[in-house]
Amino acid sequence: MTTEKTVTMLDLAKRAKEASTLLAKATTDVKDRALLRMADLLEEKSGYIKEENGKDLERGKEKGLSKAMLDRLLLTDARISQMADGLREVAKLPDPVGEVVKMWRRPNGLLVGRMRIPLGVIGIIYESRPNVTADAAGLCVKSGNAVILRGGSEAIHSNVAISTILREGLREAGLPEDAIVLVSDTRRELIDEMLSLEEYIDLIIPRGGEALIRRVAENSRIPVIKHYKGVCHVYVDRDANLDQAVAIAVNSKTQRPGVCNAMETLLVHRDVAEAFLPRVGEELKSAGVEIRGCAETRKHLPWAKEATEEDWYEEYLDLILAVRVVSDMDDAINHIRTYGSLHTEAIVTDNYERAMRFIAEVDSSLVLVNASTRFNDGYQLGLGAEIGISTTKIHAFGPMGLEELTTTKFIAFGNGQLRSS
Amino acid sequence: MTTEKTVTMLDLAKRAKEASTLLAKATTDVKDRALLRMADLLEEKSGYIKEENGKDLERGKEKGLSKAMLDRLLLTDARISQMADGLREVAKLPDPVGEVVKMWRRPNGLLVGRMRIPLGVIGIIYESRPNVTADAAGLCVKSGNAVILRGGSEAIHSNVAISTILREGLREAGLPEDAIVLVSDTRRELIDEMLSLEEYIDLIIPRGGEALIRRVAENSRIPVIKHYKGVCHVYVDRDANLDQAVAIAVNSKTQRPGVCNAMETLLVHRDVAEAFLPRVGEELKSAGVEIRGCAETRKHLPWAKEATEEDWYEEYLDLILAVRVVSDMDDAINHIRTYGSLHTEAIVTDNYERAMRFIAEVDSSLVLVNASTRFNDGYQLGLGAEIGISTTKIHAFGPMGLEELTTTKFIAFGNGQLRSS
Repeated sequence: MTTEKTVTMLDLAKRAKEASTLLAKATTDVKDRALLRMADLLEEKSGYIKEENGKDLERGKEKGLSKAMLDRLLLTDARISQMADGLREVAKLPDPVGEVVKMWRRPNGLLVGRMRIPLGVIGIIYESRPNVTADAAGLCVKSGNAVILRGGSEAIHSNVAISTILREGLREAGLPEDAIVLVSDTRRELIDEMLSLEEYIDLIIPRGGEALIRRVAENSRIPVIKHYKGVCHVYVDRDANLDQAVAIAVNSKTQRPGVCNAMETLLVHRDVAEAFLPRVGEELKSAGVEIRGCAETRKHLPWAKEATEEDWYEEYLDLILAVRVVSDMDDAINHIRTYGSLHTEAIVTDNYERAMRFIAEVDSSLVLVNASTRFNDGYQLGLGAEIGISTTKIHAFGPMGLEELTTTKFIAFGNGQLRSS
Repeated sequence: MTTEKTVTMLDLAKRAKEASTLLAKATTDVKDRALLRMADLLEEKSGYIKEENGKDLERGKEKGLSKAMLDRLLLTDARISQMADGLREVAKLPDPVGEVVKMWRRPNGLLVGRMRIPLGVIGIIYESRPNVTADAAGLCVKSGNAVILRGGSEAIHSNVAISTILREGLREAGLPEDAIVLVSDTRRELIDEMLSLEEYIDLIIPRGGEALIRRVAENSRIPVIKHYKGVCHVYVDRDANLDQAVAIAVNSKTQRPGVCNAMETLLVHRDVAEAFLPRVGEELKSAGVEIRGCAETRKHLPWAKEATEEDWYEEYLDLILAVRVVSDMDDAINHIRTYGSLHTEAIVTDNYERAMRFIAEVDSSLVLVNASTRFNDGYQLGLGAEIGISTTKIHAFGPMGLEELTTTKFIAFGNGQLRSS
């Protein structure tokens, strides 16, 4: 049982490593059967999950958690079904493992290719939402990786209940239950120990606020895929269709302001500032958005607050928007390079040359022409799933789907090839 | 000048970062022109290089470096031309930057793709061979990355001379010379400082012995691509063509025993041990190979030494071979899993089912059927170049060519797409 307090972190990691070698060999059919069984069991045992979740909620109330925090913790029948449906969706996705992504013949006849394989053991360190337990485990199982889950202490009863059920699903499908292990001892020291077990854990993915991610990145001996903040920009070019620009700006800011791919700064070409800013300003104001503008912005929007240098760096995650008038596209690109976070940037323009140059030159995990920043998401971009969005460039940059949870090995079919000097 | 002692590591890293944004935008033509100019300048200024190299050699003799070490340091006209030709070869390779590796249309009409981009700034930490200065710089320039080179103190005069010339080539081609910077202050503390500059350096590649790589990996806040040891195996199956098996074993062991892709352990199926071992034993013995065998091996090769448990872990890099008789392929795969280093493993067999299963199940950066382990090399596998071989799975696994020095960003061409809830 992974829930015994006496099991050490090292034991858990060793068990997961052992299980990972079996899971790596499992066929797609068996993995999908496990995912579907896990989904059904979550729904069948929703009573047990809600009971354990109730303990977390009660303790949360005692500890004085905010209403928003308690809502994030809460598991209802609808939310449990959502988790189950998430697993069913992952079962439908193509299996990346075993795919030969490329194959070529060498002059000596050797047939060389690259075959997708799982990474091994993935550690997920997350905060309060218990649905991450099922979502992350599902993606790891499908991609052939064992997973070590370390959720927040506030959700510990819920997480233990969910992971126990998921392990039961693995077992019933004939897979090793230690392919999903939960760290039930939520003392902080165990995270540090986890981050030192490079021999057993291949990748760490922290999911949560910037403080958590930085702490994990700074203490880990294991590679970490980081998702820092999203200071996303929309640049409205001189040749923008202004109707489109208004719609894209409003959608990027207000469709869901609390998430990382929402726009935080709007950059407007000087030549269209007079025509564009009053129009977008009205729409944003009526949507409840507070605007913090540069001096030139405030000429056109006298009601806007004054932006300070800090505003250009800010990820508000709220109905607040920084607005700056720029002299041309290069000025916009320089602003993005100085203040941006490599997350998502969009240009609105009907000018072909600038559209292509913006795409080529802007250094972000997603660069868009004439579309909302809100599309930076694994589902929206067509990856079928997402375990997070990487804003650093090593291994993965942008939304991470199943493929990003794999690597490739080289394979070679020969008929006696030898190396000559 | 990067060679001033007063320039701090932070200054160097900032300059390289700045240069990297310009290099990332450079066209293939300009980068190739720089590479060719660098090559010509190396040959034109070979007198200067040899003079500076002479200082390193002299100091090396005073310090009592071994003959092998001094030979590694030595630069002759032929070796300088080899460096130059290396740069010319890299100029001929396709430019990975800007390649759109995949593109697809979403149901809402958004055209989404993945475009290759440079990583940014790459730090190379290496030991005594001064040719690495030119080889690594060439690959980084071609892939649009700035590079910070930190070579060994024994080669410092040679490295300064080479990097000064390479920077001249960049400048003459209109590229920023700070795209190649050399850390001329070789105190150990500066490595630690370099490894902490995660804001400016995107990836660290250590090239050298295991001790160097471990020290770098343990101290780095920046992602490190590791190349640990190569304990490579050849498994001779029951259904092997024994002529082929002898040739592959001898080539894998003796063609160049001092390198990471040479075979270190030979695994032989029990059913062919009697027919195979005396034959391969004779050939290996006459090539000067010392054999350390398990008890069963020594029944067939009475002259072999006795292998200890340590031998199965050993990377000899020498004319020594560990030999073990196994009961079947699963026994061989288990041995590889227990003692291997994820580097290179080959099976020799004419059995189709086992060939395919070995390819699928063995977890190494290159898995071969009926070919020598010596093919695990970027040039031999057709990547055109190689900056190292990764034996860890994050970002790259196996030989790293130009593509492995890039990542992909998502790009999206829209016509007003908005996200709905």
